[in-house]
Amino acid sequence: MGNLPWQARNPDFAAVVRKSFDRQAHMSTLSARITRLEPGAVDLTAPYDARFSQQNGFWHAGAVASLADSANGYAAFSLAPADTDVLAVEFKINLLAPAQGERFRAEGRVLRPGRTLTVCRADVFGVTPEGETLIATMLSTIIIRPRP
Amino acid sequence: MGNLPWQARNPDFAAVVRKSFDRQAHMSTLSARITRLEPGAVDLTAPYDARFSQQNGFWHAGAVASLADSANGYAAFSLAPADTDVLAVEFKINLLAPAQGERFRAEGRVLRPGRTLTVCRADVFGVTPEGETLIATMLSTIIIRPRP
Amino acid sequence: MGNLPWQARNPDFAAVVRKSFDRQAHMSTLSARITRLEPGAVDLTAPYDARFSQQNGFWHAGAVASLADSANGYAAFSLAPADTDVLAVEFKINLLAPAQGERFRAEGRVLRPGRTLTVCRADVFGVTPEGETLIATMLSTIIIRPRP
Amino acid sequence: MGNLPWQARNPDFAAVVRKSFDRQAHMSTLSARITRLEPGAVDLTAPYDARFSQQNGFWHAGAVASLADSANGYAAFSLAPADTDVLAVEFKINLLAPAQGERFRAEGRVLRPGRTLTVCRADVFGVTPEGETLIATMLSTIIIRPRP
Repeated sequence: MGNLPWQARNPDFAAVVRKSFDRQAHMSTLSARITRLEPGAVDLTAPYDARFSQQNGFWHAGAVASLADSANGYAAFSLAPADTDVLAVEFKINLLAPAQGERFRAEGRVLRPGRTLTVCRADVFGVTPEGETLIATMLSTIIIRPRP
Repeated sequence: MGNLPWQARNPDFAAVVRKSFDRQAHMSTLSARITRLEPGAVDLTAPYDARFSQQNGFWHAGAVASLADSANGYAAFSLAPADTDVLAVEFKINLLAPAQGERFRAEGRVLRPGRTLTVCRADVFGVTPEGETLIATMLSTIIIRPRP
Repeated sequence: MGNLPWQARNPDFAAVVRKSFDRQAHMSTLSARITRLEPGAVDLTAPYDARFSQQNGFWHAGAVASLADSANGYAAFSLAPADTDVLAVEFKINLLAPAQGERFRAEGRVLRPGRTLTVCRADVFGVTPEGETLIATMLSTIIIRPRP
Repeated sequence: MGNLPWQARNPDFAAVVRKSFDRQAHMSTLSARITRLEPGAVDLTAPYDARFSQQNGFWHAGAVASLADSANGYAAFSLAPADTDVLAVEFKINLLAPAQGERFRAEGRVLRPGRTLTVCRADVFGVTPEGETLIATMLSTIIIRPRP
């Protein structure tokens, strides 16, 4: 996706993103971690874990969506002002290939940042020793709110 | 959602749906169970569990989406012929209210069954002793395939 | 869709909706008119017109989407305060059957009104002398803004 | 979006796409024309025309969606075998900026081609003498069927 044109408005964006991510129990349950963190770009990686599979042993679409949704949310959050929080308004995901691999990487990218709404896209890859396969793509709308 | 106009094509639809559901490890991880199962209509209910929460303690959008996606998938599967399997092609979810409650119930309903593609809608409710709140709505496209 | 639980905040909502609708040249081009207008519920009806068809003579998905998008936008607008305007943030539409009929009716309904964002659903029907067929369903996110 | 990895299965793909496009009355009504046509990649360009505007004079979201939907449909069709037709199953569009400009260009690109279903993404730009602005992005699911 090339150079990212975005600038962080909060100089502490990285610490703020990590602190919020550490509070997402669902990400910890999925053993997800942040593997890239730049203004407008957040990658999350999680190992395959059979506890989150569907009837054929692939990862459940909801587990894939969980990773992509958090990647997009934190990509949006990385551009937000201090003392705000982000919430997903909605997302749409296309499942492009069976969710298999040793691990999954969701690349969340800001398409258009806004004062109120930010739109992000995430691509999710299944990673094996042989290479990577695009397994899903998500388009998300995220709202930025003053922190309660 | 009133009377359901659909007829099952597989007389064993209920057993087939339950068998597949029991193989979805992700549903078991969420402690979800089937609380309604009729042709074209499947409800899934799961207790709130803090392991699947986001940064504010509400259920993560991906956990809500997991429940809705399986409800829609099994609603579609309840109308499928014998010896088939279903896969989510894509879904879109709007998060309407914070995902809080003692438990969550996703109501998956077939809007249009098809030989290849079935379109379903799911509403997800947060349930408390005081009542129910609509927290999300999902629109899904599901493909029916011969069982591998 | 039964009783509508919504109350208009602007007593002049009907006049305000009609005035904005009359300024949507695209609706006039489609010969669309308002056939229901209540707080949170707007129906739009347009005659089949071959100028908006796709390669098989059915209405183009974009024409169907135009009608549904305006129905949802005005359903949202009917609940908005005075001196505001509405814009579609995003929508998703499933095409359920070929868009044929003498005319099309889009029923826009508010699912969840909000101060900033309103979520609506529209069902679109193809109408013939024999009856009506559900041809599409849309889920929309609409933003309310102070009028510029 | 870089190099396109796709190969056409039908050597006459360009003629077949153009023939179908010429039969889409809606594209002719919008004065749209094909400005790029390669395997898996179709650009459509249409001039701004006030007949398709919303209440503020910008292009209506449904007109923008019409252009993006056809761009995606023909991108998918460019990879389809001979004697088939394509239909949009569903799409989701995010409106990122007001649809203004002298003309609009929709870039439809195949993300994942399939025997039955093809997933495409379209970006839509508003074009002025000063430059181009991304005004919308669409994610579509398209079905390939034997020609009736």
